[in-house]
Amino acid sequence: MLTDHRYVKITGGYWQKKAALNRDVTIKAVYDRFFESGRIEAFRCDWKEGMPNKPHIFWDSDVAKWMEGAAYILERDADPELEAKVEAIIDEIEKNQGEDGYFNVYYTVVEPKGRFTNRDCHELYCAGHLMEAACAYYNATGRDRFLGLMEKYADYIARVFMIDHSAAFNTPGHKEIELALYKMYETTGKEKYFELMKYFLETRGRQDIPGLPQEDLSRQIQSHAPIREQREAIGHSVRAMYLYSAMADLARETGEEELLSVCRELFTDVTQRKMYVTGGIGSTRHGEAFTVAYDLPNAHAYTETCASIGLIFFANRMFRADPARTSRYADIAELAMYNGALSGLSLDGEQFFYENPLEIRLRDRTRLTNGSEQEKYPITQRVRLFGCSCCPPNLTRLLPAIGDYFYGFDEKEGAVYVNQFGESEFSYGGAKVVQTTDYPLDGAVKIASNVPVYVRIPGWCGGLFRADKAHTFENGYARFEPGEFTVTFELKPQLIAANVNAVNDIGRAVLRCGPFIYCAEAPDNGGEVHTLFFDRTAVAAAKTEYSEYFGAPVVTLPGLRIKNKTDALYAPLDEQYEQVTLKMIPYAAFANRGECDMLVYLNVR
Amino acid sequence: MLTDHRYVKITGGYWQKKAALNRDVTIKAVYDRFFESGRIEAFRCDWKEGMPNKPHIFWDSDVAKWMEGAAYILERDADPELEAKVEAIIDEIEKNQGEDGYFNVYYTVVEPKGRFTNRDCHELYCAGHLMEAACAYYNATGRDRFLGLMEKYADYIARVFMIDHSAAFNTPGHKEIELALYKMYETTGKEKYFELMKYFLETRGRQDIPGLPQEDLSRQIQSHAPIREQREAIGHSVRAMYLYSAMADLARETGEEELLSVCRELFTDVTQRKMYVTGGIGSTRHGEAFTVAYDLPNAHAYTETCASIGLIFFANRMFRADPARTSRYADIAELAMYNGALSGLSLDGEQFFYENPLEIRLRDRTRLTNGSEQEKYPITQRVRLFGCSCCPPNLTRLLPAIGDYFYGFDEKEGAVYVNQFGESEFSYGGAKVVQTTDYPLDGAVKIASNVPVYVRIPGWCGGLFRADKAHTFENGYARFEPGEFTVTFELKPQLIAANVNAVNDIGRAVLRCGPFIYCAEAPDNGGEVHTLFFDRTAVAAAKTEYSEYFGAPVVTLPGLRIKNKTDALYAPLDEQYEQVTLKMIPYAAFANRGECDMLVYLNVR
Repeated sequence: MLTDHRYVKITGGYWQKKAALNRDVTIKAVYDRFFESGRIEAFRCDWKEGMPNKPHIFWDSDVAKWMEGAAYILERDADPELEAKVEAIIDEIEKNQGEDGYFNVYYTVVEPKGRFTNRDCHELYCAGHLMEAACAYYNATGRDRFLGLMEKYADYIARVFMIDHSAAFNTPGHKEIELALYKMYETTGKEKYFELMKYFLETRGRQDIPGLPQEDLSRQIQSHAPIREQREAIGHSVRAMYLYSAMADLARETGEEELLSVCRELFTDVTQRKMYVTGGIGSTRHGEAFTVAYDLPNAHAYTETCASIGLIFFANRMFRADPARTSRYADIAELAMYNGALSGLSLDGEQFFYENPLEIRLRDRTRLTNGSEQEKYPITQRVRLFGCSCCPPNLTRLLPAIGDYFYGFDEKEGAVYVNQFGESEFSYGGAKVVQTTDYPLDGAVKIASNVPVYVRIPGWCGGLFRADKAHTFENGYARFEPGEFTVTFELKPQLIAANVNAVNDIGRAVLRCGPFIYCAEAPDNGGEVHTLFFDRTAVAAAKTEYSEYFGAPVVTLPGLRIKNKTDALYAPLDEQYEQVTLKMIPYAAFANRGECDMLVYLNVR
Repeated sequence: MLTDHRYVKITGGYWQKKAALNRDVTIKAVYDRFFESGRIEAFRCDWKEGMPNKPHIFWDSDVAKWMEGAAYILERDADPELEAKVEAIIDEIEKNQGEDGYFNVYYTVVEPKGRFTNRDCHELYCAGHLMEAACAYYNATGRDRFLGLMEKYADYIARVFMIDHSAAFNTPGHKEIELALYKMYETTGKEKYFELMKYFLETRGRQDIPGLPQEDLSRQIQSHAPIREQREAIGHSVRAMYLYSAMADLARETGEEELLSVCRELFTDVTQRKMYVTGGIGSTRHGEAFTVAYDLPNAHAYTETCASIGLIFFANRMFRADPARTSRYADIAELAMYNGALSGLSLDGEQFFYENPLEIRLRDRTRLTNGSEQEKYPITQRVRLFGCSCCPPNLTRLLPAIGDYFYGFDEKEGAVYVNQFGESEFSYGGAKVVQTTDYPLDGAVKIASNVPVYVRIPGWCGGLFRADKAHTFENGYARFEPGEFTVTFELKPQLIAANVNAVNDIGRAVLRCGPFIYCAEAPDNGGEVHTLFFDRTAVAAAKTEYSEYFGAPVVTLPGLRIKNKTDALYAPLDEQYEQVTLKMIPYAAFANRGECDMLVYLNVR
């Protein structure tokens, strides 16, 4: 199964606009912030103690992700200025790479004696991101200078870890190199990169390999057990997603059923027990981690933007790897794309969230009155740069490559999977599929294809769709023979509820319309959202209307607001409600109009 | 208005049993734990560096509160062994008191040069508790040795603070001496103690008095403003209650309307905006403090036992001080007595809670899986001793003096207020009132009185009561002429809801029956309480049954349990319920049968 944005043109619609915003605004904004903070100049490797902008251990990765995003943009649109920026960074990498192939800003200028001594210092994570960027740049431009540098680096890493065993650890604290090496293997066709990827995966969590340093068997970094014994999503959620993605790549390459089955279990654990309704994951800031099943606090959701992006990666790799390629993989990718990942980006394209809570109550921030201690809540306004600024460049590499998630080409059958909907074209070999649609503003998707097509029936439509052409069903997809046809999904606002094990959310519901999860913000709802109720009898009266500002439909529907009968603190139960019109906006667009209260789960009456 | 347990005999019923448990078990258990931990022997003042059981700054107060409780017991029941223990401690105080009158274990043996240098080290708090104990012991036994020692100490404090100004601070960090000095004044009749009490109150939060050390204007210790400018309950909740109680005493003594009005506002702020439905106060462990209005988290409720006891003190002092003596004061005292204060004591009388949460979910404790950080929750099982063990002896002094809250004698009118109900007698001067009742198991209260009687109509009955004799109404009391009559309150289980500003509790309700607040515990409810719902249509079918084990009625009523239709994490709203029988136990008795989930607020359907 092939999924690759290089064969996909997003020709219009929601994601085309987001990709254009990224190309015109975000990619520049992130570069500028990285420049101002010293991340770009750090690649000159001339920092010395006493100078400002001391390089941090993860700076290489920040810039590398930005380079990867730039490469995807350059793949489609010439932009000499952008290209010059990338080339200038490659110049510095070339100039400052060691004879042996090593390149790392921090370990060159800050701690030159520390190379490969600290598992948790992101060295292989940075290397991996540079490799992903090099593959992207090679694919975009055909120029192999950067890729050559990174091949040299990968070869060095292979010697240090697989042959000399001279590093102080066997497997990295933050996964990424595993994914990257698989891309190196795919890009260069060289088996050695696949072997090295396999080495890092197979060595993880094992204490039984003589001659290797002992692993730190930490649950936080998913090295508590060998990969085939990991059946539960735990620890740092981004690292988990990158690990599970690489495991899926490995299972895809080897066709190993046992590993695939582990990946399926992990995917189920994440998406059936530990995922917010927005596609956000990671329930606690403590370790940026998963917690226990169904523990999904809303105001203190951590739900890092990178983790939602990682979930998209994992879902898509499962789609590629799993012969039983259920539509659930693309359902989850869609959920995270439209909601938990995209919420990390402001509507103006220049500001970012790291954490993406499902509830904001500003009053909570003032509850500690003695001033000596403070509680930590997610921030309420996006910012232009973080100290640990991984999320912004992760968005810049997601958006121009969003086509990765639209189509899959099954080489065996010569059939195309339509996973995501939007005005677009797929062509690969002789296969060509064209989508004409206003999705997600409209549920009708016209498809023209010269090969058999599997069209995902989104989980959210509950099977309510129609097609003007005969089709069969397979794993949540409708299969059509070549030709032209229209599939129309019933796009109507509906209330959804969480599993009752998520006890915080009992008695509450979330408004969903198509792929969008909605939220209530104070400015649209009389300044107060916590007293609002959905009226279960009135959802059918909901109206959607396209909002130019949000670039998506807003939903208005009759609802209720609970009122006090008196100012008593406690009184016999006798709820008073007033009729109100609820105005709900897409969750991903929350916090674009100043600091305000926000709520995804409303009570239901 | 006089309220004094010395004129009250509790002759049977709920509080008689609790007082007996205290006399027979708790007072001994607390002494034994204090002995084992070195608190008793510390009074020998012979601790030296390197010895075990280093005295702590608040140990004097722990033991003093125990002594006060012992005195109240001795007032009624001879107990030579108990008396000998008290006398032995008084011996040590006498032996180790300074020539100048000073007595403090910590500042004698640990930090002898630190006397009156640190406002936050509980020195005057300890002194105050010793004075309260001395007054109690004098009133109980007529022996004035202890009182004499404490008079000498009070005189010394007056010199240091009011005359020499030689202390490093003006007013204490932890209030208590103010209350105690008022008791010294009431007990000895000596104005100088009232003057010193007034000095501490009037100096608080003032920077405008020349020649005095500058106050630390901290909100946490309520010194951020002069007392008449304090209109909002903030900071440490126990300290707030002790301060406001003393302010009410001052207003009572002087009849000052402005101060009384401030006290009324503070009482309203606490009880109308910052009090849990159990009569618990203090919404955060950070500073053991009040937070903002309507911020009442259930699982993280701090609600210290001492704070609820302090609220009883404050309410009763407001009843004494306020000429418009509304029944709300005694309503609040009753709520805290039966619920938030008593929950601090196990049914066996030997184990204690410091924090009294309104929700326990054991699974929450395991949510952080990376092990490197932990979240703080209230403990789930009572313990025999705390490092800071203020709550146990606060209960031992509350229970034998519970009669303080039963009756008030209005000397002007020669009438008696019946504030709390239970088999008891009040006699003072020629006035005599006898209550015959099974309250709170039964709502009928027979009263025989030779003076006019004001009977509180409890707020919880919503005016639903009947009386077999003519009466008039005043401030929530029914006024009866002398004679014999029966007042019967409608005692039926009912659901009550919080003000909608307490947004956590929207859509939820609490079961109340008479003075008891109820909770659901897992062992009675199929092991899981968070999925339970009250059925608003079925509350009339609730049955109460006296439980010997709980010493109070348990309530069973038809309810619902929400069930998953599938194991999906999210699905269209379509709640499935099963009929269940809810078994609710008195909140004060939670956590007596092993560690388990508990919930006060249930969802309502």
